[in-house]
Amino acid sequence: MININEILKGRKTIRKYTNKTIPTTLLNDLLEKACRSSNTGNMQTYSVVATTSEEMKEKLSPIHFNQSAITNAPLLLTFCVDFNRFTEWCKLRNADAAYGNFQSFIGGVVDTIIVAQTFAIAAEAEGLGICYFGTTTYNAASIVETLHLPRLVVPITTLTVGYPDEDPKQTDRLALNAILHQETYRNYTATQINDIYREKEELSENMAFVEENKKENLAQVFTDVRYTRENNEIFSKAFSDLLKRQGFIFN
Amino acid sequence: MININEILKGRKTIRKYTNKTIPTTLLNDLLEKACRSSNTGNMQTYSVVATTSEEMKEKLSPIHFNQSAITNAPLLLTFCVDFNRFTEWCKLRNADAAYGNFQSFIGGVVDTIIVAQTFAIAAEAEGLGICYFGTTTYNAASIVETLHLPRLVVPITTLTVGYPDEDPKQTDRLALNAILHQETYRNYTATQINDIYREKEELSENMAFVEENKKENLAQVFTDVRYTRENNEIFSKAFSDLLKRQGFIFN
Repeated sequence: MININEILKGRKTIRKYTNKTIPTTLLNDLLEKACRSSNTGNMQTYSVVATTSEEMKEKLSPIHFNQSAITNAPLLLTFCVDFNRFTEWCKLRNADAAYGNFQSFIGGVVDTIIVAQTFAIAAEAEGLGICYFGTTTYNAASIVETLHLPRLVVPITTLTVGYPDEDPKQTDRLALNAILHQETYRNYTATQINDIYREKEELSENMAFVEENKKENLAQVFTDVRYTRENNEIFSKAFSDLLKRQGFIFN
Repeated sequence: MININEILKGRKTIRKYTNKTIPTTLLNDLLEKACRSSNTGNMQTYSVVATTSEEMKEKLSPIHFNQSAITNAPLLLTFCVDFNRFTEWCKLRNADAAYGNFQSFIGGVVDTIIVAQTFAIAAEAEGLGICYFGTTTYNAASIVETLHLPRLVVPITTLTVGYPDEDPKQTDRLALNAILHQETYRNYTATQINDIYREKEELSENMAFVEENKKENLAQVFTDVRYTRENNEIFSKAFSDLLKRQGFIFN
């Protein structure tokens, strides 16, 4: 039996997989466990689209900026907020469904990610490796088109899933005292910020990123290369427009 | 050793707790495991505020509509999107942080819920019980004030945590084939919708809800009583306004 503590403490994101496929019975079992987790009002306003065909992986690959895990993985799961199914049920029951709004959408995102993360842990407990793709919300409109998502369905994240064919180093994390606040949030002094980020800044791999990108420091690698103002604004507008097209009106 | 499969399959939301407190070492260990889970670009744009004092529980209770678990639980954890810490670091490093936008916010919500759900599973594996509170986004402005959350910090969900003092019946879930789509989304026919929701509609507890609320069917209990158009619109406006006040501009 696998020790859950070891799984959670030792976990690593896996981007390279063997060509072993995932049995349907295993996938269904993992997803059933995932759906047992908490959700708002037991409405289950999410859907999961499974991609296993080479044809569909090739279509999704450029949407995820051709990251190699997408075509390399035996399985992709796109987790979506789904108020379509619930609304169709309401319509058939003469019930006034009003879920095309911001609050419902955020609740749907929460429930969708709860399912995705429970799936991820259940999969890792079975020896599978996973990787999350934030690109799903960057290029959501293309995913809507490719996966034929109807009104009130919005893709939120994609997991690649497979048997690991790599054993990367575990990435760093901030010390817990940087994240946890007792009773109220205590804002950070400059000294505290320096202390919190020192270890990360001094990691050899992070110092290499700074040098490669010809930046003064690691923070600038994030702001000038990885998550830039320009891209953040472009992808914000695109996702906001897509949400409106999918029927979510924001006040 | 606890079997993770049993934990995930047998789990139930727990709203009633014994008065046994949660040792600090256990809480820290659970949160450290939670922070090992995936996050966008390893930016860790989340914070957790722990509430254990009676005074703070009393202040938070009305914000969560006086649900009894809030004051009954030995511990409340409010999970927040936090771009404040990261932005403060960027400012000290002369880096142009531009994270007050919709895409960054959604990425932050994803990462925040990944941490919350990993915590929930780790806690359940230790014999603890948890309950999620969606009221956090309904009344986020009051939580911001009560927990002293600065600009770029937004509360997303709250978990009550404690040792179970009840053993409720497990709630129903839709069959997996209602949630899972192969390759592309296949929209539902009326017959399929009727099939998907039949079991839920025929549960005695759900039939009792319909009768108590004098409604024609279960869907109307959701739309007319639990998640109404009026409330969805009020809480959408409130959350949208709060996000703007916290520095997130939506295109």
